[in-house]
Amino acid sequence: MENTIPSLEELIDRFAALPGIGRKTAARLAYRVLSMPKEDADSFAKAIVNAREKINQCPVCHNLTEDEKCRICGSEKRDTSTICVVESPRDVNAFEKTREYNGLYHVLHGLISPMDGIGPEQIFIKDLITRAGSSEVREIIMATNPTIEGESTAIYISKLIKPLEVKVTRLAYGMPVGGNLEYADEVTLYRALAGRNEI
Amino acid sequence: MENTIPSLEELIDRFAALPGIGRKTAARLAYRVLSMPKEDADSFAKAIVNAREKINQCPVCHNLTEDEKCRICGSEKRDTSTICVVESPRDVNAFEKTREYNGLYHVLHGLISPMDGIGPEQIFIKDLITRAGSSEVREIIMATNPTIEGESTAIYISKLIKPLEVKVTRLAYGMPVGGNLEYADEVTLYRALAGRNEI
Repeated sequence: MENTIPSLEELIDRFAALPGIGRKTAARLAYRVLSMPKEDADSFAKAIVNAREKINQCPVCHNLTEDEKCRICGSEKRDTSTICVVESPRDVNAFEKTREYNGLYHVLHGLISPMDGIGPEQIFIKDLITRAGSSEVREIIMATNPTIEGESTAIYISKLIKPLEVKVTRLAYGMPVGGNLEYADEVTLYRALAGRNEI
Repeated sequence: MENTIPSLEELIDRFAALPGIGRKTAARLAYRVLSMPKEDADSFAKAIVNAREKINQCPVCHNLTEDEKCRICGSEKRDTSTICVVESPRDVNAFEKTREYNGLYHVLHGLISPMDGIGPEQIFIKDLITRAGSSEVREIIMATNPTIEGESTAIYISKLIKPLEVKVTRLAYGMPVGGNLEYADEVTLYRALAGRNEI
């Protein structure tokens, strides 16, 4: 009963359904839309419909793309012998920003999580195994998040890939660059110690 | 160059243009839209266009409404002798939630702020003076925020209304209920002390 303007209530509900947006923030965003020039509100609405309609998954790596294949799978400059396995398309962007990785990707679109009812068949593991079986692939880098779900998904996949005689690697654990020892948790510190390198 | 998917970039830009939404949050929201069922994305877009198109300002109090007059100005149960002057339509909702105020409102849609180039003629002060001049109005409650702009707008308006022989009041200053003396700033504490009441 906060508002009795139905179209405003509807818009607030839509914003509040987005992740990390509470009722108060949703209301603030909705009021902002009301004070926009009409063309801006229309363009915003159009951007939503457009993005949702035009963007599909790449049939090879399941990254997002507007085209037939994603720009990474479609590029001739990438090293096709390495596949980096990530949870979401956002992780692909994170790696691309480093400008250090030149291989291909495979986006799982989720992690195995029995608590949330997500099994191996709900994410794109089967496609990955098929890709790993191709003769040119020599290394699969498991780059899922260092969480329980990320860890167990990485282990599950590596067990499936091992028989194919493809090297499976995992991202290094340790101190984040610019981090502070004092604030590092015990497990991270232990991993940094265990993985120490000669200088 | 984070993404090279134009429709995704466009959607992220639109979200990032909203208040309090940075690039990272905007990207998170945009990806959420991509993973919505198509109907949900369409409904979201429609809600934006709908709200922007249907909602207008009440010609009397400048509150938001889908109808000719807002539900408060249109109600016969409200006390038309009191007008509560607020900065934005959100403030109207805040007062309505208290269920203690039964008068009318006047929404200024801004505050006088020379720093931002907003003068008295850019907000709905003129209409308020006209309303205050009507014979039935007996009290104008200045309920702008307790900030420099809110304060000076309240003083500016009260000076214009005084000659009309209408009572002008201001919200009480003091400790917020549930607040902690230790964390109250000096000015609030001083005001709470100065405005003390016998119990």
